[in-house]
Parts: sequence; structure tokens; C-alpha cells
Amino acid sequence: MSADVRADIGSPGALMAAEIAEQPAALQRLLRDGIAPIAEVRRAIELFSPEFVILAARGTSDHAALYGRYLVEIRRQLPAELAAPSTLTLYGARPDLRRALFVAVSQSGASPDLTASLQVARECGALTVAVTNDAGSELATLAHHHVDVLAGVERSVAATKTYTAELLALYLLLSDDAAGGATGAAAVPDAAAATLEHRTRVAEAAARFRYAQRLVTTGRGYSYATAREAALKLMETSYLAALAYSGADLLHGPLAVVDADVPVIAVTTPGIGATAMEPVLAQLADAGADVLRVGDAAGLPVELADVAEHLAPLVEILPLQQLAWQLAVDRGVDPDRPRSLQKVTHTW
Amino acid sequence: MSADVRADIGSPGALMAAEIAEQPAALQRLLRDGIAPIAEVRRAIELFSPEFVILAARGTSDHAALYGRYLVEIRRQLPAELAAPSTLTLYGARPDLRRALFVAVSQSGASPDLTASLQVARECGALTVAVTNDAGSELATLAHHHVDVLAGVERSVAATKTYTAELLALYLLLSDDAAGGATGAAAVPDAAAATLEHRTRVAEAAARFRYAQRLVTTGRGYSYATAREAALKLMETSYLAALAYSGADLLHGPLAVVDADVPVIAVTTPGIGATAMEPVLAQLADAGADVLRVGDAAGLPVELADVAEHLAPLVEILPLQQLAWQLAVDRGVDPDRPRSLQKVTHTW
Repeated sequence: MSADVRADIGSPGALMAAEIAEQPAALQRLLRDGIAPIAEVRRAIELFSPEFVILAARGTSDHAALYGRYLVEIRRQLPAELAAPSTLTLYGARPDLRRALFVAVSQSGASPDLTASLQVARECGALTVAVTNDAGSELATLAHHHVDVLAGVERSVAATKTYTAELLALYLLLSDDAAGGATGAAAVPDAAAATLEHRTRVAEAAARFRYAQRLVTTGRGYSYATAREAALKLMETSYLAALAYSGADLLHGPLAVVDADVPVIAVTTPGIGATAMEPVLAQLADAGADVLRVGDAAGLPVELADVAEHLAPLVEILPLQQLAWQLAVDRGVDPDRPRSLQKVTHTW
Repeated sequence: MSADVRADIGSPGALMAAEIAEQPAALQRLLRDGIAPIAEVRRAIELFSPEFVILAARGTSDHAALYGRYLVEIRRQLPAELAAPSTLTLYGARPDLRRALFVAVSQSGASPDLTASLQVARECGALTVAVTNDAGSELATLAHHHVDVLAGVERSVAATKTYTAELLALYLLLSDDAAGGATGAAAVPDAAAATLEHRTRVAEAAARFRYAQRLVTTGRGYSYATAREAALKLMETSYLAALAYSGADLLHGPLAVVDADVPVIAVTTPGIGATAMEPVLAQLADAGADVLRVGDAAGLPVELADVAEHLAPLVEILPLQQLAWQLAVDRGVDPDRPRSLQKVTHTW
């Protein structure tokens, strides 16, 4: 990568830039070394034969869980929910989970409320799986099964490579077309590498949003997770107020926020989700919005040859990670040192 | 109410002000006329004996559904999820829902994607219930059962009285302590009326946030729904970028946005949720945030004598509706005519 996106070690954002750039290799490693152990967990899930799936996570991992939810509902035809951990921890609910698969996603595996909710879910009968980047973590130890996302140590506070590794691990764990070691994800690492090359476009987009204080991100279907994660990256690194809504939810109220001063990032890589975004884009145009399309040659390009819509989130987040990095650096903020945040967040 | 909150009919915000003021009476009406018909739907649910609950909604009603989710998980000990309607509509998922209760919440009952998702859920075996303010709506007609929230015609685009009526209807439908016509909600209308009297405090808060462009709302447990709905009201009427996060999720990244220029509205009416907010408030103080507490004598008072924590959302949203109204009027925006929005939103 050129100096504008991968800075020298020690310069502002060096860690985050290096970890953004590592993603094609990290995804390749997970495809090489992760498929066999994940296939064992898949078999345990098939034996258990869950009737519904609960995914629990916080922050960036919650957006990976959101992707997992769409995978389970669409590709597995099972009901799936994102847990509200406080119902199990603070409020002491003890639901019957004997037909539930409970998947906790956390790069550190160290957040106390996730650990506690997995413990409760296990006591309530669920089959529990921890998806983490630390095989020695408490979450990994407590769960029936552990999936290691094999991303290597992540030093940047703003998670990047663990996010895409979690997405791929959830795909390998949950999608119907990843059974038996076969996977449609083989093309993803090359697509990721090709997408990361569009640095000029990223720099142009960062210049365009240089003085924005408020911003909306939106997408539908699988790409909704991308919109959510992009907003979080922009908040963590550039401190702008990034409102993330599914295209449908945006029209039910938050659209009022949008005018010529509030740019919109719309994730519209080709597929069913993008088709459903068309009326949303029309209403954004009526509101006078400055819309940046992700997945469009005129916006932020995403290279998706041979990558199916349900794998697109693994690639389409990359230019948005680069944008968050570039915008922070342009604004004189060090994206490796977001104010008020630590790498591992303890919540109860 | 005084002229500062209830304007004359025809003046800016007159509709919204009148509907905010109507809420104690609307809640009283629902307690008087709604308990018997809702008890019949309760009995049908008990016969069906669901193993899990799916709530589907958009916009303001989605926040009522979020409250319903906490009620079901905590008071009924059943897993509950907020539907992602697109999985059923756009992506054609056909899950086995023969053990599911599917509750669609919509003031108009006219949103095509909700109607379509309820139709699919019914075809997949779910017991379906529509909670709406229009007994003649398509949603009400399609569902096995209809719960009328009896709020009367709502003319303001920004929903207020239908929100609290949906909350009460969901409480009467789903909570374990509302069985057989007995209800802990009897004290709610008086608490609502008393809470609406604190207009001076609302006006002070509006003056304090007069020039804010970005704002964070937060709460935990039941009050998370209030934080979400408050953010939407502020976005719809004053166009400020209002970021809503549960107290736990706020610490996992979005906290970086908060500084002395980004005020925080923290819903901390007494209870388990408020106790869990204490470490969040400590971190907000460290970040230099200007925090307005809702439910605090020094902030926006909420009158909750004899109202349990799981009913507090019916009352604690009221000063936040008033704040959204007042802030819009102070800024010269007509809260009855939010730009880009219509009363009924059609999404697919």
C-alpha cells in the first residue's frame, strides 16, 4: 500500500493501517487452517440440531453477529436473534434454551457480560460456541466449542482484521454452502486484496467528507452489517456522529436528519439488498443528500468477481475501514489512539 | 398545559403538543376499554403456548417492540427477537415457526413489508398478532388476532400517543403480571399526567441543547427502548444527529464520539437498568460529557410512585417527547411537518 494508507510504524494510525492491509492474508490463513476445526464444530451443531440460534456480542463483533443472523435466517431457514445480554445477566431471565444454539462473538473473549450470558445460556440448555481471536480466553474456555478466527494479535483499538475474520468464521460455521470443507469463500482473499488497491478513491472520499460532523450509513440485507460497522469505525477514529440504519428503517423517521450537510454512505454492492435500496436512494436524492455509493465504480469500488452476495460483507467493509483511517489522519487524529477507549472493554 | 408546550391549533407543533398532552387520557382509555379484548388474545396465546416470540416493527413502533422483547424475555422467560423483515420478504426465508408467536406492531398497520412478513410468518405456522391503532388496517385483517391500542387518530407525523399506547398494549398482552385483567399499570395514567407537568425543566433542557448538532441517548434494560425512541423524536423534529446506544454498547466504541460538545441524555429512572448505568455515567464524566439525566430531580423529573421498573418506559418517554417538541420550536422548525417524512411510510 502507498504511504497515504499504510503509514510507517510509529506514525499516527500505523497499527490500524497495517492490520487493514493484513486482511487478505488473514482470510487466506483462516481458509487454510480454520476449515477443519470449524467443520468439527459444524458437526456438533448438526448433531444438536438447534431450532433457533442466539448470537451475542458487543461493538464490532455485534456487527459480525448481525451478519451471522442474516446467514442463519436466510441460508439455514432458522429463526435467529441478537441477544440482549442484560436480560440474562442483570435481570436474571432463565429461558428454556434446550433447542438453542448460542454463539458468542468477541475478539478478546474477555468481556464479562458476554462470558456471563454464555454461562447462563449453557446452564439453560443451549449448545454454546465461542468465536474469538484468543483460544485461551475465558469465553473460549467456558463454551462447549471454540472457533478461533486466527487473525493474529490485533493491536489497533479500532478492530479491522478481527472483524473480517469473524465474518469468515461465522460463514464457515453457519452457512449451508460451507459444509464439508467446500466453500464459496475461496475467491474472497483475492477480492479483498484487489479492493484494497483503490486508494485514490478512498482519499477522494476522505477529502469530500473532511468537514462533515454528521453522517448517515445505510444498507439492506447482508450489507446492513457493513453499514453498522462502517459507522462504528468512523465514530471510533474520526469522532463524527455516524447514524447507521437499514434502508427500510431510515425511511421511518431518521431520513429527516438528511440534508445537503449530512452525507450518506450507501452500501449497494450488487444483489437483492442493493435492489431494495433503489427507492431509498431515490428518497435520499429528493432530500438533497450527498450520497457516496460503496460497490459502485463512481463511488468506492468493491471487487466482487466470483463472490456471492452473502459473502460480500467480507469485502465491502474494506474501503470503509480505509476511509475511517484516512479521514482520521486528515483531521489530525491518531486512529490508533481513539479517545476514551481501550482495546478490551469490560461491561457487565 | 401552558402555551410553551401546548400551542394553539394551527401554530407550529400544535398537533404534536396536543397529542403529547392526550397521553394520560389515552392510557386510561386503553386500561378501561382494552383489557377485556386483550385478555382474549392472551388466552389464545396461552393455548398456543409459544416457545419463542418474534416482534416485527419499524420506526417508533420498533422501539415499542424492543420494550416488548424485554418484557417477554424477563417476565415470560421466553426467547424473543426483533424480526429482520427482509429475511422473510426480500430473501424469501421460510423458517419453521410452528412454535412461534409473531407480533407485528404498527400504528397505521399499513407498511407493506410488515404486512408481507406477517403473512409469511402465518404461512410458516406462527400464531400472528397485529398491534395497531387501526382495526381496519391490512395488518389487523391478516393477523389471527388484532390488538387495538385505542389511541384515537394520530395526526402528528412524529408519533407520541400511539407509542405509549403500543407500550401499554404490549404490557397488557405479554407481561406475566397483567394476567386475568389484573394489572400493575393502574398508576400509570396519573404518573404520566404528573410527569407532563414539569414543563419548566423541559424548557431549561431545551435551552441547554439549543445549539447541539450531535447528541447521544443511552439507557439499559427496559430504558434502552426509551433512549432509542427519544433519539428518533429528536431526529424527526429537530434534525439533530441523535445516536442511541445501550449503556453497554456505548462503551464498546461509540463513547469516542462524546466530548464537551456532544451532550448525553441518560435514562436512569430507578431500577436494575439504572444501577447498571452507574459505570457508564462515570466514564461519561471522564469524557467531559454534559449529561442530562432523565428520572432525576436535577435533570428531567419522572414521576413513578407505584410504577414498577418494567412499566417505567410508559412514563419516562414523556419529558423526552416534550423536549423534542420544545427544541424544534426553539429552533424555528415546525415539529408537525418534519421534512422528508409522511405519516405512513411504505417500505418493502
